[in-house]
Amino acid sequence: MIVLGVDPGTATTGFGLVDFSNRKPVAITHGVIRTKPDLDMASRLMVIASDLKELVEQYRPDAVAVEELFFANNAKTAIAVGQARGVILLTLAQANYQVYEYTPLQIKLAIAGYGRASKRQIQEMVKRLLCLVDLPKPDDAADGLAIALTHYNFAKRLDRV
Amino acid sequence: MIVLGVDPGTATTGFGLVDFSNRKPVAITHGVIRTKPDLDMASRLMVIASDLKELVEQYRPDAVAVEELFFANNAKTAIAVGQARGVILLTLAQANYQVYEYTPLQIKLAIAGYGRASKRQIQEMVKRLLCLVDLPKPDDAADGLAIALTHYNFAKRLDRV
Repeated sequence: MIVLGVDPGTATTGFGLVDFSNRKPVAITHGVIRTKPDLDMASRLMVIASDLKELVEQYRPDAVAVEELFFANNAKTAIAVGQARGVILLTLAQANYQVYEYTPLQIKLAIAGYGRASKRQIQEMVKRLLCLVDLPKPDDAADGLAIALTHYNFAKRLDRV
Repeated sequence: MIVLGVDPGTATTGFGLVDFSNRKPVAITHGVIRTKPDLDMASRLMVIASDLKELVEQYRPDAVAVEELFFANNAKTAIAVGQARGVILLTLAQANYQVYEYTPLQIKLAIAGYGRASKRQIQEMVKRLLCLVDLPKPDDAADGLAIALTHYNFAKRLDRV
């Protein structure tokens, strides 16, 4: 079972692909979709949609999970993240995926067993769980891997895998 | 010149199409794209994308304008509106439109000449400008018409029509 985890953002959308077919989960790839700030918003969203579509077509994950947000520092940030999330949910739904969503709290609990875990602690746990040599970089890509691990954790508990 | 104005929302996206070819602007149609609250978010966003695509293909507007938001009552609302906006911007960009964006303040100033105009005052002005018999309904559709009128107002000043 291959799971794609996605951490939405207008400037940087992180992703991580994890293969759970064997006893130990293996990170297939992780990275970010970046969009240039000098592009207009509609063009940036087109980049996110087409890069994500390409990623899904290339790796054909069995399940996809996206970070769910309820909080933001301000409305402007919330709307920007919302725009990227909307495009990501649409693109995945159009590719016939049922999209699973996890809040930052659920991700922290699943990965570190502690709801107030720091970004760094999550990255350390992701590194350990996936037997990586270094901390996964950049941060948003590490979040993508954490979301994929979270989904597998939930799916396993619900006997969905 | 036919202009499509769009007021984004996850539950209700308003739209208005106005024809400015003659001396007096004429409302071609206005209405709302509604999505059922019992559907999951990705499916609701698919409904918005496909209905909007259909609308654009049917009426082939010369320009499209979307309301831009910077404020919201809370982050949850901002993210929800952002999701709908993201899908709308993407769908219009994929249909090869350059998308114009106007803030509520710009719309109020353009329609009523007063930045603190109420929803009702805007609706009255839209009714008058388009020589409608009744106030345009529902509210979000009236906003769609107001956005189309705003775009024409701006475009005319910039000699874009």
